Amino acid sequence: MNSFIYIPDDSDFTIYNLPFGIFQKENYFAACTRIGDTVIDLYQCMSTSVFKDIHLEESVLCQRYLNDFIALGKPVTSKVRLILQDALLIGGFFDNDMFKGAGIFIPADDVNMVLPIQIGDYTDFYSSKEHATNVGIMFRDPANALLPNWLHLPVGYHGRASSIVPSGVPIRRPSGQTMADGSVKPDFGPTKQLDFELEMGFVIGKNTEMGQSISTAQAEDYIFGLMLFNDWSARDIQRWEYVPLGPFLAKNFASTISPWIVTLEALELFKIPGPLQEPEVLPYLTYKGPKNYDIHLSVDIVTEQGHEKRVSTSNFKYMYWNMCQQLAHHTVNGCNVRIGDLMASGTISGPTSDSYGSMLEICWKGTKPVQMPDGTERKFINDGDTVSMRGWCEKDDIRIGFGPCDAQVKR
Amino acid sequence: MNSFIYIPDDSDFTIYNLPFGIFQKENYFAACTRIGDTVIDLYQCMSTSVFKDIHLEESVLCQRYLNDFIALGKPVTSKVRLILQDALLIGGFFDNDMFKGAGIFIPADDVNMVLPIQIGDYTDFYSSKEHATNVGIMFRDPANALLPNWLHLPVGYHGRASSIVPSGVPIRRPSGQTMADGSVKPDFGPTKQLDFELEMGFVIGKNTEMGQSISTAQAEDYIFGLMLFNDWSARDIQRWEYVPLGPFLAKNFASTISPWIVTLEALELFKIPGPLQEPEVLPYLTYKGPKNYDIHLSVDIVTEQGHEKRVSTSNFKYMYWNMCQQLAHHTVNGCNVRIGDLMASGTISGPTSDSYGSMLEICWKGTKPVQMPDGTERKFINDGDTVSMRGWCEKDDIRIGFGPCDAQVKR
Repeated sequence: MNSFIYIPDDSDFTIYNLPFGIFQKENYFAACTRIGDTVIDLYQCMSTSVFKDIHLEESVLCQRYLNDFIALGKPVTSKVRLILQDALLIGGFFDNDMFKGAGIFIPADDVNMVLPIQIGDYTDFYSSKEHATNVGIMFRDPANALLPNWLHLPVGYHGRASSIVPSGVPIRRPSGQTMADGSVKPDFGPTKQLDFELEMGFVIGKNTEMGQSISTAQAEDYIFGLMLFNDWSARDIQRWEYVPLGPFLAKNFASTISPWIVTLEALELFKIPGPLQEPEVLPYLTYKGPKNYDIHLSVDIVTEQGHEKRVSTSNFKYMYWNMCQQLAHHTVNGCNVRIGDLMASGTISGPTSDSYGSMLEICWKGTKPVQMPDGTERKFINDGDTVSMRGWCEKDDIRIGFGPCDAQVKR
Repeated sequence: MNSFIYIPDDSDFTIYNLPFGIFQKENYFAACTRIGDTVIDLYQCMSTSVFKDIHLEESVLCQRYLNDFIALGKPVTSKVRLILQDALLIGGFFDNDMFKGAGIFIPADDVNMVLPIQIGDYTDFYSSKEHATNVGIMFRDPANALLPNWLHLPVGYHGRASSIVPSGVPIRRPSGQTMADGSVKPDFGPTKQLDFELEMGFVIGKNTEMGQSISTAQAEDYIFGLMLFNDWSARDIQRWEYVPLGPFLAKNFASTISPWIVTLEALELFKIPGPLQEPEVLPYLTYKGPKNYDIHLSVDIVTEQGHEKRVSTSNFKYMYWNMCQQLAHHTVNGCNVRIGDLMASGTISGPTSDSYGSMLEICWKGTKPVQMPDGTERKFINDGDTVSMRGWCEKDDIRIGFGPCDAQVKR
């Protein structure tokens, strides 16, 4: 498939992708997709007859969030994507001079990509076995690194929705209480151990009622799409506060997402089997067919002066618990989900140290600092540093990516 | 102060209270207050000149939630309450036959009180020293019942906003994974240890930006009002799932609130000093003046056949950490709060066993069952039981209450 729109070779936004987002230009917000370096204003598309074969309320396309668009359901939103894909081909509907200058096609650099969904609730899982094992070895018992429940259920907890921001928004280094080893009084001040966590998030695309459960077989119906997710963490604050009820201020000051929601349909081609689950899981967590995704992931640290260092090369395929299991578990007690809810994977670490998804693991509790190209070293993230995450799939010359998930740390 | 509207002797809704809520009648939703057994439709009040001295957009009064009304700010919402108080006095603005039948006054039994706020994020604290101590004695080490951080910071964690429902909505007994003592494989099924937690919640009345902190001195400005809160908990699910990241499915299936938000202004008269905090807290947690509230609390279990037993008589004054400290702690890292966010106290237990705020504590891990009037006993909550919470303040013949926080458990 070739589009009449120019697509750079390494673009995340090929004709096979067509993710959804919301762009802002001054006071105007609209639903959009992107191909190459061109953003397509879906609201402006309504002035053409491109969507004539589906019933599409134009009001859902000029809102601050995608929630009402997503609420139309996959039969509609998938069709929108397929119609756009067709219309963007050479010789397709939009390959016509009359659409130039109609406000439909906008250079990506001219718009601001904002948070695309109103997030009702945000849940963070802890579903990478390698990550949970690394943390267990470092902080608990190397011989019993995984806690007893870990292999039986996808451990998760609730996080803060209000402080989830899109790529590009600077992050302020948080202050908080810490307790130094051997001390009897806590200290207060800016965290000395600001870390990233390389994660992916998925967006709920369909409501349930309280009391209703979603089976692993139904789960894909409830997942609209995926994004990159940086679960910023202050390790020193976390260590002191997290017993017995879990992380709180160590996490809720900020999370960064990539602002494009890549649909589950676009990712279908990149499905692969997950790891063997042993011991056998309870019946409600069993599933059929491949439910993992082969998504390459990377994390770079870029200094204020532009010196760049790749610190992690991982893959979403390493997840022990897949998204269908996470969603089945989350709702097995009747907990309701709502369109726009966000669920993140937990830190994605691979089997080798160059594939770990946090500085805590990469530097192994500070014992193996990362050497930066400018001669400095990092155990955690410095003020001025930008943490830059990327995710992409490649197969048979087809490439799909997520766009940037970047944020600079400010004092 | 006497109103021309009849107020039963034991009413929670005296002229001194005037809480805010949203009622539903068929497809109509409106902001309201209540006096005695009469609900007052604030939107219909706009057809009179009662609010002529303040600028009040009538659109904020006929919405599904109070958020936009609260967003007007305390200078406006407090004034609305004071105007209503004055207008409801004998000889006041509304004491006039012309307003009878104008749709302003509605019998409370004729309307349905719904969830009054769109809750962005919900946070649960763990701020009763007696409760944390009881749990520590039962599950950890009696000699070191409190974890090291407990006396230094108000421990809190994020909960689920989607499943918070108003009084009257039945709760379905959740199913989930449990691990029996000595077993090597988890079981799956309905919880055998369904519990309530007696709490109070407060509603955020003012937004902050990310990076901004609220001091203890500023905190009251950000608190719109309070309600009763039942943090339903499945103890067997909780015990298995909660390490290391905190409670998840054991809590997120449902929470029940009383649907009236009692304003901080109404509660001003009932402020009292809190317990001495020792060791001294960090500077950002210090505060001046009384910040606790003398609010009597009770919990009854009512069987399906109507047999009723009071299982707890507690008081909000027992809280070790007050709301101002909770809010200062929550935002000290720059975490932003939004209007409608809900923060709950954690289980409120007093010093004696008849003042404990959960069946876990009242029955001391099942060793001291509660005897019901019908001859049955309870260690936890049975199907068909209604858990009924009440809260009220009394001083100098002035009484203010919260209305019911009730829910029946269904299989």
